[in-house]
Amino acid sequence: MIGPREIEAAWRLIQPHVRRTPVVELAAGTLGLAVPLALKIESLQVSGTFKGRGAFHKLLASTVPAAGIIAASGGNHGAAAAYAARALGHKAEIFVPTIAAPAKVARLRSYGAVVHQVGAVYADARAASEARAVETGALMVAAYDDPGVFAGAGSVALEFAEQASFDTLLIAVGGGGLIAGCAAAIGATRRIVAVETEGTPTLHAALAAGRPVDVAVSGIAADALGASRIGTPNFEIARQLVKESVLVSDEAVRAAQRALWEELRLVAEPAGATGLAALMAGAYRPAPGERVATLICGANTDPGSVA
Amino acid sequence: MIGPREIEAAWRLIQPHVRRTPVVELAAGTLGLAVPLALKIESLQVSGTFKGRGAFHKLLASTVPAAGIIAASGGNHGAAAAYAARALGHKAEIFVPTIAAPAKVARLRSYGAVVHQVGAVYADARAASEARAVETGALMVAAYDDPGVFAGAGSVALEFAEQASFDTLLIAVGGGGLIAGCAAAIGATRRIVAVETEGTPTLHAALAAGRPVDVAVSGIAADALGASRIGTPNFEIARQLVKESVLVSDEAVRAAQRALWEELRLVAEPAGATGLAALMAGAYRPAPGERVATLICGANTDPGSVA
Repeated sequence: MIGPREIEAAWRLIQPHVRRTPVVELAAGTLGLAVPLALKIESLQVSGTFKGRGAFHKLLASTVPAAGIIAASGGNHGAAAAYAARALGHKAEIFVPTIAAPAKVARLRSYGAVVHQVGAVYADARAASEARAVETGALMVAAYDDPGVFAGAGSVALEFAEQASFDTLLIAVGGGGLIAGCAAAIGATRRIVAVETEGTPTLHAALAAGRPVDVAVSGIAADALGASRIGTPNFEIARQLVKESVLVSDEAVRAAQRALWEELRLVAEPAGATGLAALMAGAYRPAPGERVATLICGANTDPGSVA
Repeated sequence: MIGPREIEAAWRLIQPHVRRTPVVELAAGTLGLAVPLALKIESLQVSGTFKGRGAFHKLLASTVPAAGIIAASGGNHGAAAAYAARALGHKAEIFVPTIAAPAKVARLRSYGAVVHQVGAVYADARAASEARAVETGALMVAAYDDPGVFAGAGSVALEFAEQASFDTLLIAVGGGGLIAGCAAAIGATRRIVAVETEGTPTLHAALAAGRPVDVAVSGIAADALGASRIGTPNFEIARQLVKESVLVSDEAVRAAQRALWEELRLVAEPAGATGLAALMAGAYRPAPGERVATLICGANTDPGSVA
C-alpha cells in the first residue's frame, strides 16, 4: 500500500507542471459555520480540478508510447488527461458517450485532444477506449483506480498540510482517487472524513458491505462523483484510514455553492462544494476546538449556475 | 502625508475583522503572459472587494455616533460600509440614485442598511446623504478621498508583500483609494503602476494636468472605477509615488475576465481584472527578470458574466 513517501515522490515529480493552489483561513462565523475553517482553493489547479495532479503524475511516471494516451471521460478526468498530454507533448484520444455536453467536448478539443463520441452511456465509451488502446498501443489513463493516478492527487494533502494547521480534512468522494491519495499522504496523522451525496454513496456503500459494491448513482454531483463502484486499491486505503463517512443532500450541496459565491465570490461545481456542505449542513460535527479543513476540489461548471 | 507606519497601524486595527486573502504564484505562460505573476485574490475579502478594508478602518478609527454611519454609493463602497457597520453594531444609511440596480440595493439591505433611493444621478444621492448627515449627526464615510479610508485599503499591499516577492505592483484606479493606500504602504520600495480603462482615466488626466481635473467617465468599468475626479490627498501621494500610469481598452478588460475564468476558474468584475488586463494587453511591459504582481481587487458582478 502506498504511503507518505510515495506521495512525496509523486509531488516532486509533478511540481514543475501543477500549481501550488492557495489556502484561505476563515474565521468562525464565515459561511454560517461555528468553527474556523481552512479552505484550499484547488479549483485553481490546471484543468480546473485536482485531477490535473493525477494526470500529470501518471504521464510523468509512465513511458508514454508514440501513440500517446487514451482516457474515457467526458468530465474532469478527461480534461485533466488532455491538458497534461498537451503540456508534455503527447497525443491524446478521449472517449466520451454521444450524450456528452458540447461545452465539455469543446474544452477537450481546445486542449488538443482527438475526441471520439461513442455509445449511449459511459460504459460503451470505456469499452471503445480499451479496444482502441489495444489497437494503437497507447497508454490507458484510468480515472481513479490506479495508484499512478491517485498518488498525484494525494500531493494536494501534503501541500495543504504545509499551508495550514488542521486536525480533520473533509474530502468529497467519487471513485476514490482523491481520498485514497490524501489518506495515503496524511491519514496516519490527520482525521480523514469522506463526504458523498446521497445520490452517489459509492464509498459509504462499500464500507457498509466490507467490499466495493455497485451503486446506482444520481443527483446534482453525479457527473463528477458518480462512479458506480469505488476503486479496489482506493477502497483498501479508505477502509484502513478513513475515520468517518457521511452523506449530504443535493440541496445541501447547492446551498454550499451559493454560500461560496455569496460570501467568498468563489465558484465551485457541485462535487467541489460537497466537503463544505457536510460542515454547513451538520452531517459532520466537529468537536470543540477541532481544527477542520476542506478543499474546493473543482469548478468545471457554468459560473452562472452558482448564483 | 501618510506612510508605511500609518498603514501598518491601520492593518493592525482591522486585522480581526478582515480576511488575509490568498495569493497564487503563476508560472510564465499562464494567462498568456511571458513572465511569472503573483496574483492576490482580494475578491475573497469581506463584502467582495478591497473596500472592506477601508470601511472597517474608517469605522474603527472614528467615534461612531448613535446615529451610525452614512455613505453615498450603490456600488462596492456602499456594500463595504454597510457590511462593516453591521459587523461593528452600528446603524447604516446608504444613499443611492433611483437607477441603482435592484440586486445591489438588495445586497445593501441584506447587510442590514437602510437604503435611500434619491435622485437621478450619483451627485443627487450624495447631496442628499450630506444633508441627512447634518440632520442626524451620523458619521459620513467617504468612498476614497479620506486617509481614514485609504489607510485601510493600503493594508492589502503590506499583506501582499509578506506573501510574495515582487518588484512591481499593478493597481486599478478609480477615485484613487486603493492606489494611494498601496503607494503609501510600499511605494518607496516597489514600483507602483496605475491602470485605468480608456473610459475612466481619472488619474491619467490628473497626472497630465498636474492637478485633479474632472473627467467624463464611461465604459465597462465605470460602475467601480468611474469617479469623475481623483481624490486630492490621493493625487498628492500618487504624484510622488506612482511610477507609471497606463490605460487599457474595455475589450482588454473583458479578455482578462474571460482568461481568469478559463484558466483559473476565478470570477472578477471588470475593475477587478483591469490590472491584469494591462499585462495581458501589453499596456505595461515588464523588463526581463522584473517580478510583477497584481490584485483581483473585486468580484461584485454576475458570475455568469465572465464566461
